[in-house]
Amino acid sequence: MNGDANGFMRLALGEALAAARRGEIPVGAVIVVASTGEILAQSGNRVEELSDPSAHAEMLAMREAAARLGTPRLVGCDLYVTLEPCPMCAALAGFARLRQVCFGAYDVKGGGVEHGPRIFEQPTCHHRPRVIGGIHEQRCGRLLRAFFARRR
Amino acid sequence: MNGDANGFMRLALGEALAAARRGEIPVGAVIVVASTGEILAQSGNRVEELSDPSAHAEMLAMREAAARLGTPRLVGCDLYVTLEPCPMCAALAGFARLRQVCFGAYDVKGGGVEHGPRIFEQPTCHHRPRVIGGIHEQRCGRLLRAFFARRR
Repeated sequence: MNGDANGFMRLALGEALAAARRGEIPVGAVIVVASTGEILAQSGNRVEELSDPSAHAEMLAMREAAARLGTPRLVGCDLYVTLEPCPMCAALAGFARLRQVCFGAYDVKGGGVEHGPRIFEQPTCHHRPRVIGGIHEQRCGRLLRAFFARRR
Repeated sequence: MNGDANGFMRLALGEALAAARRGEIPVGAVIVVASTGEILAQSGNRVEELSDPSAHAEMLAMREAAARLGTPRLVGCDLYVTLEPCPMCAALAGFARLRQVCFGAYDVKGGGVEHGPRIFEQPTCHHRPRVIGGIHEQRCGRLLRAFFARRR
């Protein structure tokens, strides 16, 4: 992990914090062109705000990045997200042909990359991004635990 | 399967045909309120048109239905879709708390319900819709095979 990766994950953490302030589960995501470091899109979770069960941070960021590039394929792009992607978002990362999926906290209950269906390890998965987990794991996880502790 | 199910799947087939005419992989989907038969949304695949890797027919239909209801949860609603949902759309159907997922053709290579990660059978899946596969299977499958034969 280089200095850029730290910076991208800090941006994603900022989006997660902003999501928490809107009353959403605090997850944030950034899509970056790997070769240049250009940030194509950044987003937080907006499920409740948009009344959209698909509006996870990384789903919104991937959709925005694809719209900006004018193609459904994000070849050569990397995702930075504060939480291990769920099966829905992991499957989308495969469809979008992402180069790399970098995440913060591991998600034992809802993750789909290192847990549950392990989407990229399925024989029917046609594109497997490189996966790096545990970037700023403590900070990403603390944000989520604090959010759920307040809601109880 | 009752007469209504046939009608809903015919609507989904119409959306699949329209998608084929737009040059998209021909899949169509309809979201219905189970108790009244009200059609909340219907859509075909629009991945290329929208430059959106998530724009599968059932993803678009679930998002539209949720926006109409003003909530991210489609409790008491059924999905009719011409092809077995992929892992992304199956995971979304769980998040959306759909009552039932009814599909036409089985998808050995890309499906996520009866094939691949079998999303609803994962211990980490929190909501399992009832699944009915094979409705108008021949017609749904023929449309897809004809589309791919023309592209070769």
